[in-house]
Amino acid sequence: MADEAERFPVLRITKEDISNTELAVASEFLFTIFLNDRELATLLCSPGNLRYLAVGFLASEGLLNSKNEIKKLEVDEWLGTAHVEIEGVDIDDSFFAKRLIASGCGGAATFYSVADANTPVVESSAEISPDEVFTLVNKFQHRSQLYLATHGVHSAALADRREILIFCEDIGRHNAIDKIFGECLMEDIPTSDRIIISSGRISSEVLHKVAKRGIPIIISKSAPTSLGLKTADKLGITLIGSVRGKKMNVYTNNWRVKKKTDGNA
Amino acid sequence: MADEAERFPVLRITKEDISNTELAVASEFLFTIFLNDRELATLLCSPGNLRYLAVGFLASEGLLNSKNEIKKLEVDEWLGTAHVEIEGVDIDDSFFAKRLIASGCGGAATFYSVADANTPVVESSAEISPDEVFTLVNKFQHRSQLYLATHGVHSAALADRREILIFCEDIGRHNAIDKIFGECLMEDIPTSDRIIISSGRISSEVLHKVAKRGIPIIISKSAPTSLGLKTADKLGITLIGSVRGKKMNVYTNNWRVKKKTDGNA
Repeated sequence: MADEAERFPVLRITKEDISNTELAVASEFLFTIFLNDRELATLLCSPGNLRYLAVGFLASEGLLNSKNEIKKLEVDEWLGTAHVEIEGVDIDDSFFAKRLIASGCGGAATFYSVADANTPVVESSAEISPDEVFTLVNKFQHRSQLYLATHGVHSAALADRREILIFCEDIGRHNAIDKIFGECLMEDIPTSDRIIISSGRISSEVLHKVAKRGIPIIISKSAPTSLGLKTADKLGITLIGSVRGKKMNVYTNNWRVKKKTDGNA
Repeated sequence: MADEAERFPVLRITKEDISNTELAVASEFLFTIFLNDRELATLLCSPGNLRYLAVGFLASEGLLNSKNEIKKLEVDEWLGTAHVEIEGVDIDDSFFAKRLIASGCGGAATFYSVADANTPVVESSAEISPDEVFTLVNKFQHRSQLYLATHGVHSAALADRREILIFCEDIGRHNAIDKIFGECLMEDIPTSDRIIISSGRISSEVLHKVAKRGIPIIISKSAPTSLGLKTADKLGITLIGSVRGKKMNVYTNNWRVKKKTDGNA
């Protein structure tokens, strides 16, 4: 089984120093549940206790009430699959046709679309300096008024190297980013070569969203997951995380982070 | 349009004092997107910028690339619906049959099941004292070893009034809770009259999960959303949030929180 955390090389930038180091990152694992030979859902999860996750997920969905109803429960930890058979459960198409996409803290579901496999690599040669990152994050934090009032929402912003261009808050981390991209589409605001700032953790599906809009740099106050980090690496995105005070970690494509500022975003 | 935050009465408990006050809570709004007259998804979101959310969601799902493809876009802010028509998009059943349930920070999707409308009210007469809450949260925090290493996961626990019985971590807030309930089901561990502790924000779908297992008390270090709070109220669950140091807010069914400890959990 995969470990609950993996270690990755990271460029650690503080006010005084830039150094190469290694940090633990939470593992992100794809786990597909098949119910009565039909693919039910793929969860992004930590790789432990997969048997319990399969059962608990089915119970929470109202598909299972006791373990006696389980005819088969086979978890393949290498393939990341669970095959479950439950007697008397009839899942017809109408079950699949309705779904609720939860806010999470904020997560969201995304359809497991083939499109993701074709997400283009971001080729942008945009750069950013550590000072610009600190200044942007500072501006970003001052905008989070709703959060200060309720402690319950996530923020996201579209920025260039100097200014926050669009700012959005939502109880859903994904919704905040989708609202920004919706505004860009409707109001003809370009996204390529620009920067996304998020208050939330950067997991793989966020990177796909961002790459589809041609955005080369994503900045977060939180830490990424392992799959988020690998996805950013593969999609050519510079992932800057754990920005707090005058410290940050550059996890991927760190060539875009230059100490000296030259040129425009 | 609904406000981004709503005010609710709350029982504020500190080491020195118990008082009735009123606090702002982030609004949680259900927003259903219909694409070409077919129900596509229901998002739990904040109630602002719904037009941008509909467009951004469709773009992130790869169903839309430019606003010129949009033939119709009607958002009804009172009904919480968007009707979108896009030319040339053919969504067949296979599109609905595959989905990825994201970890969120950690959110998750849940099928929008009719079962939720039938979630039973929790009738338990269990009680808890403020000191027991503080002690449990303290024990809970000491268990979060993986979080300390990676800053990327959520924790959840099943507890009685005195001890943490099961502890679980996952990048997904929902997964952590589902893993606990899966273990309870498989190992014949009772859940009724017990307590769930979560590191994450308490939104409506978490309350449905918890109510289905007959759990009367949920404790979180974070703040709830408006719909989470209303759902806890309706389902008879005592929602204790924002537990930090020696302070907590009891949002709903506060009759279960008694200053003096008597009896067992």
